Amino acid sequence: MPVDPRFFASIGAVTLGKWAELAGATLIGDPEAPATGVSSATSARHGDVCFFEGRREEMSAISVDALACLVKPDFADGLPEGVAALVCDAPRLTHVRVGRQLFTLRPLSEWGEQIAPGAAVHPEAKLAHGVVVGAGAAIGEGTEIGPGSVIGAGVQIGRNCRIGAHVSVQCALIGDHVKLASGVRIGEAGFGVIAGEAGAEDIPQFGRVILQDHVTVGANSTIDRGAFDDTLIGERSKIDNLCHIGHNVVMGRSVAIAAFSGISGSCVIGDGVQLGGRAGIADHVTIGAGAKLAAAAGVFRDVPAGEVWGGVPARPLREYMREVAWLSKQTKSRKKT
Amino acid sequence: MPVDPRFFASIGAVTLGKWAELAGATLIGDPEAPATGVSSATSARHGDVCFFEGRREEMSAISVDALACLVKPDFADGLPEGVAALVCDAPRLTHVRVGRQLFTLRPLSEWGEQIAPGAAVHPEAKLAHGVVVGAGAAIGEGTEIGPGSVIGAGVQIGRNCRIGAHVSVQCALIGDHVKLASGVRIGEAGFGVIAGEAGAEDIPQFGRVILQDHVTVGANSTIDRGAFDDTLIGERSKIDNLCHIGHNVVMGRSVAIAAFSGISGSCVIGDGVQLGGRAGIADHVTIGAGAKLAAAAGVFRDVPAGEVWGGVPARPLREYMREVAWLSKQTKSRKKT
Amino acid sequence: MPVDPRFFASIGAVTLGKWAELAGATLIGDPEAPATGVSSATSARHGDVCFFEGRREEMSAISVDALACLVKPDFADGLPEGVAALVCDAPRLTHVRVGRQLFTLRPLSEWGEQIAPGAAVHPEAKLAHGVVVGAGAAIGEGTEIGPGSVIGAGVQIGRNCRIGAHVSVQCALIGDHVKLASGVRIGEAGFGVIAGEAGAEDIPQFGRVILQDHVTVGANSTIDRGAFDDTLIGERSKIDNLCHIGHNVVMGRSVAIAAFSGISGSCVIGDGVQLGGRAGIADHVTIGAGAKLAAAAGVFRDVPAGEVWGGVPARPLREYMREVAWLSKQTKSRKKT
Repeated sequence: MPVDPRFFASIGAVTLGKWAELAGATLIGDPEAPATGVSSATSARHGDVCFFEGRREEMSAISVDALACLVKPDFADGLPEGVAALVCDAPRLTHVRVGRQLFTLRPLSEWGEQIAPGAAVHPEAKLAHGVVVGAGAAIGEGTEIGPGSVIGAGVQIGRNCRIGAHVSVQCALIGDHVKLASGVRIGEAGFGVIAGEAGAEDIPQFGRVILQDHVTVGANSTIDRGAFDDTLIGERSKIDNLCHIGHNVVMGRSVAIAAFSGISGSCVIGDGVQLGGRAGIADHVTIGAGAKLAAAAGVFRDVPAGEVWGGVPARPLREYMREVAWLSKQTKSRKKT
Repeated sequence: MPVDPRFFASIGAVTLGKWAELAGATLIGDPEAPATGVSSATSARHGDVCFFEGRREEMSAISVDALACLVKPDFADGLPEGVAALVCDAPRLTHVRVGRQLFTLRPLSEWGEQIAPGAAVHPEAKLAHGVVVGAGAAIGEGTEIGPGSVIGAGVQIGRNCRIGAHVSVQCALIGDHVKLASGVRIGEAGFGVIAGEAGAEDIPQFGRVILQDHVTVGANSTIDRGAFDDTLIGERSKIDNLCHIGHNVVMGRSVAIAAFSGISGSCVIGDGVQLGGRAGIADHVTIGAGAKLAAAAGVFRDVPAGEVWGGVPARPLREYMREVAWLSKQTKSRKKT
Repeated sequence: MPVDPRFFASIGAVTLGKWAELAGATLIGDPEAPATGVSSATSARHGDVCFFEGRREEMSAISVDALACLVKPDFADGLPEGVAALVCDAPRLTHVRVGRQLFTLRPLSEWGEQIAPGAAVHPEAKLAHGVVVGAGAAIGEGTEIGPGSVIGAGVQIGRNCRIGAHVSVQCALIGDHVKLASGVRIGEAGFGVIAGEAGAEDIPQFGRVILQDHVTVGANSTIDRGAFDDTLIGERSKIDNLCHIGHNVVMGRSVAIAAFSGISGSCVIGDGVQLGGRAGIADHVTIGAGAKLAAAAGVFRDVPAGEVWGGVPARPLREYMREVAWLSKQTKSRKKT
């Protein structure tokens, strides 16, 4: 997926030769080919430079549409046909560092200005005192925005939305009838850390957040933007206070998530899933449609559609309850003897 | 409890005949009787229209003061004497939808204005830069409010309170000497979801938040307003950062709640209760006075006064510790053999 | 450690005689000696008045640099030589109450003013609309601060920092290249509660927060200031969204902390420690360098360097996994028989 120019400023296309120079990499491919984006290996599209650090058998998942891929020397021969190789010792770290030079997050708003000249606020939208709107942002008819909220550069907000006080939105496309309670944070950088020579470094995050129609988000909850692709919240999904949705989560429709629930990066959550309070899901887990997680569940593997799971690590709720009861019985009888 | 007109605008009294029309319900009662409020079945007062979806034996809890009650056809004969029946197939969903038409949350502040003309700010109160005050709000002597904070329409704040930066308060009555750290959210909508034909819908929340004298709330914590009645925090209760108090919680005095603790809707928390960090309590649970919950406890049933509980699901701490020790011993000895 | 006058206004030095009068204590020492600070017993420096409420054998940890120490009558004879005794029945409560009179937190900003006259904002720093800067604050070259953020009185911020929207910072010293996402709360009062005659009282917090270079803090996370000393976050440490770091935590370099993690007061976290999501650590616990805590771990005792722990209460991850597997096996086989 290309980096969205509404949210990130680019220095423009660079040749693969230039990329190799910035990366300190050896190029196997056309040095004049223009590179326009950065992406993960699996979602790369035309013009994207991606990276690969997995096992050899995983190379088949690299997108054939990628322009080039950063790889370690031993892997240069395994790329799909037509994908140029940028050979280097630390593909991911190099991708992070060059990506950071090529694309820069636009500031939330013009420095010091309240409503950026280029913003498109519908005359029937209502802005409270102190609302800040960035360059290129658009706010639809009937939408109301509470005091002090910040609509970042390029953000698109639909019609009849209700946004509370002190909300910040960036790198996001928002549908109609969406409600964001006060203190909600949409589109902050996802959490990604990589080891560099001097210690931990942040991995830059080039994706977006999509909130479909009728989504509701509770007070002080956070939904991070994707690393390269989008974090997506499906129609009518309802999120309680103090929840966190990580980067690249793809959530279906009418999902209900109680307070303190956290969904780690790249999870897939099916339609109608329900999470009790403080349920947590580890990264890259899939929760099938209609599944329910009990309060305080900690989920580390996929949950089939329609099932009810609980406990940490989560398993089918019936198993968990049986274990709890059995353990209690053992120690109670033991006490008596 | 009637809907508080300081926080919600009403279209005024409607007759039960009009209610029946809006609800698509069959009225058994006086079509000219004026309905002035919406409420739950148990807390209904004079003029309130409530709903019932429980079991027949629970009908005795319906308030005899209710003007009318939405019920399914089979239950119309079980209402208290003098309570009119509004007969329909989906009482709760219908109540949600008509309620939403009759009462509307007032905006936090007048659109674009910083201090609403009708607000009563004591001359000895101090407001920092950017503070927004809504119509009908009142702020007492000696109270200090930090930069950018928003005091919503109709909110009453007492004397000598200390309110940090970026705090938002709505639908709330606040006593004296209350401290709200930065980023606190008081009075947002409680989390209630109901299934409609097109998917999940939010249940509107018509209640308030009451904070008694000397309450302290930590940074970025949230206290939701009641669904119909009030969320109440008793005198001198102290709440740490990133806590969540759900709708209709009734909390006693000098309760101490460490970070990340969450109390679900309609819980009752006795005087002097102490919660360790990340303790969670499921909805409608009662914690007796002086009880203590260990850090990370997950409470799903009532805790008697004075007891110390821990674990998930929580049980008396001694039992929990015995189970933990026993389990550890079993698997350690098993490893050796 | 003395109370930092950039953050707290003092009534100036008071004699020990005056201290005794305010405290209702009996002084054993020089009534003319000037007291300039308040502190804990172990970190007291020249001029500080501290308190002691422990066991007799712990008295050897009282700092020999303390000017005076509040103690119960039976302990007055056990103080280090040269430390005056302020004898009273409730040393800690008395210390809290007198400390509150002697030192007052400065307001975040001058009342009503946006940029306090005394603030030093570098001409190459960029402030968005609505940014508030308190008296004596300093903001370095190249630092960017998002809409509505509040830099409190006396706060020092280095160069090339990136601060989001609606961030509040107080009682803090911040290095270079620090990133604070939107809604972050730095320097709020740590959570401390003490029982008084009328019920719970807040313990005032006189310390600071130090964020070293390249620290990153995620959206809506909170880092409290120390009770007397400093809360310290080491170079390049990375903190995800909705985390909480308690007062007096000392964290090393390149620590990585995933969402919802909480570190209670006075913990010591070694270099390179990694916390999975929702990991919690009880107060005064030490986590050795390079240790890892699994997601949802609840740590109640020290974790040796380099180890991997999980579960609640946390133990070595291998033990925990063995227990989980064994318990599951017992109840599954039992079901079949």
